[in-house]
Amino acid sequence: MSDSRIGSRRLTDVPTLVAAARDGDHRALARLISLVENEDPALPSLAAALTPHAGLAQVIGLTGSPGVGKSTITNELVRALRARGHRVGVLAVDPSSPYTGGAILGDRVRMQDHATDDGVYIRSMSSRGHLGGLAAATPQAVRVLESAGYDTVLVETVGVGQAEVEVASLADTTLVLLAPGMGDAIQAVKAGILEVADVFVVNKADRDGADATYRDIQGMLGLVSRQPGEWRPPVVRAVAAKGEGIEDVLAAIDKHRGWLTAHDELRRRREARATAEIEAIALGTVRERLSSLRRGTALPQLAARVAGGSLDPYAAAHELLAGLRSSSA
Amino acid sequence: MSDSRIGSRRLTDVPTLVAAARDGDHRALARLISLVENEDPALPSLAAALTPHAGLAQVIGLTGSPGVGKSTITNELVRALRARGHRVGVLAVDPSSPYTGGAILGDRVRMQDHATDDGVYIRSMSSRGHLGGLAAATPQAVRVLESAGYDTVLVETVGVGQAEVEVASLADTTLVLLAPGMGDAIQAVKAGILEVADVFVVNKADRDGADATYRDIQGMLGLVSRQPGEWRPPVVRAVAAKGEGIEDVLAAIDKHRGWLTAHDELRRRREARATAEIEAIALGTVRERLSSLRRGTALPQLAARVAGGSLDPYAAAHELLAGLRSSSA
Repeated sequence: MSDSRIGSRRLTDVPTLVAAARDGDHRALARLISLVENEDPALPSLAAALTPHAGLAQVIGLTGSPGVGKSTITNELVRALRARGHRVGVLAVDPSSPYTGGAILGDRVRMQDHATDDGVYIRSMSSRGHLGGLAAATPQAVRVLESAGYDTVLVETVGVGQAEVEVASLADTTLVLLAPGMGDAIQAVKAGILEVADVFVVNKADRDGADATYRDIQGMLGLVSRQPGEWRPPVVRAVAAKGEGIEDVLAAIDKHRGWLTAHDELRRRREARATAEIEAIALGTVRERLSSLRRGTALPQLAARVAGGSLDPYAAAHELLAGLRSSSA
Repeated sequence: MSDSRIGSRRLTDVPTLVAAARDGDHRALARLISLVENEDPALPSLAAALTPHAGLAQVIGLTGSPGVGKSTITNELVRALRARGHRVGVLAVDPSSPYTGGAILGDRVRMQDHATDDGVYIRSMSSRGHLGGLAAATPQAVRVLESAGYDTVLVETVGVGQAEVEVASLADTTLVLLAPGMGDAIQAVKAGILEVADVFVVNKADRDGADATYRDIQGMLGLVSRQPGEWRPPVVRAVAAKGEGIEDVLAAIDKHRGWLTAHDELRRRREARATAEIEAIALGTVRERLSSLRRGTALPQLAARVAGGSLDPYAAAHELLAGLRSSSA
């Protein structure tokens, strides 16, 4: 039986899907994340159903350039977290791809290592980009995994642009992966990664140039001024392909987790994240209402007056928003 | 006397600045474009003052990868348009740079060729990205130039990303520049340039590989299905550094201009542009109102409830927008 048949049968029945996902039904879980990814109209009711389970999981973000070994490290972290008894969800988010249709093949390949393990769920995700895009979709997908009992969620982003940084920074702890000889240290500064990284991992640390990369990033971290008690991101060396250094990475994550709790930073971060999420949804809602106006008469009439030189665009925008308020009040 | 001193003296006096710019005062013109660039609070009143002069200029967009010879072609087009008696304004827009502070040095270097010519005005522009970003700022800067009597405005964008394409497509006629051996044809397809280009120019047409580039782009244009009467972008060869092919480029622009008029496309395009502009300003206004809420108590309280798991983010966004409506009604 295909996932989509299940989906279409239960599409409107969010509580049933949530209950099935909690019982370990991976197809129900997949269906729920698709609802999030596709920004299904049922999303607000899904969000309401997930609320009681929100905030239970530890969320770890991973980002880094292509080729630094993100999926290898993720794989090894999953293995190590499983050994500790955690249930682990992985969201591989690609902000640059507007819609992958699920990226199922890649997931299946990646799932092979954990195929028989019910305590691991790996899923690629993109966003059609309507209601708030990935800034809203990612936390929502995290909540789906939380509600299904995954107590650790890894959010892996592809690339090192601003969008990737934003997604990675939705985590409690953000890991930035580097590798020797990729000029990553400079890239990291450019993309604003220095500001969001909680832990740096120099992967492929057995290769030439690893020491230089380590020194580069330590040097740059040394230039950042910090308040007393402020977190200084540690730089951890690893050779993920050989399973080396993974325990050190986990130790750094644990230490950061301790710091978050001790300084009330976990609450502060999650509130900041919720703020960004609410704003993204609100803005997405307004954007959708505005574009629905293109089908009406008000916006085309305003546009014709602006194009014809009888109205300025600020006055037109003002008028448009006034109309939006009265129509949606 | 520096530009900024003039500016600070007359900052609140938009009508005086507009009148001075119309009288050929380049410093007043620079000041007005800075108001647009900096998204000055005086912008709505500036927009109102410019409205009577809107829509008078022909707007030509130019885009292409670094190294294709954009500034050389722009320079030669300015020369040729001047020979025809036009007054020419050039806006060099860099969407990737959030704020250059005017990029004055580059402008001065580029101005040298036309330094003694009062009928040419060249200006770099970026956007702080508040109220609608470059989608709103560029048409507004075009209006400033229109109001100062420039009847032709070239909008040149740096790069070939989506943002550059959007800015270039604000024009009546959009030129896409290619050069041999840069893989531009493929890039053009990726970035959606094929959809916005009205004229392709293969520059450096005396170099190896120019024929291949010409064939590549013609081949790709051949794959696009068109309705009868629909515009098929011509591909023009040029060697701008030697001044060769510039008249052919102008002829292609003229031909496109004729097609726009004959098919009522000029009106349609300008209304579409005005629609995008109004929406960008409206969305920017809402974004600004939302972020002003961060300083209040409502949004932090909603965020705390979402982070704490007692409210879902969609319900929070709904509540936020309801509050926004009642506070700004």
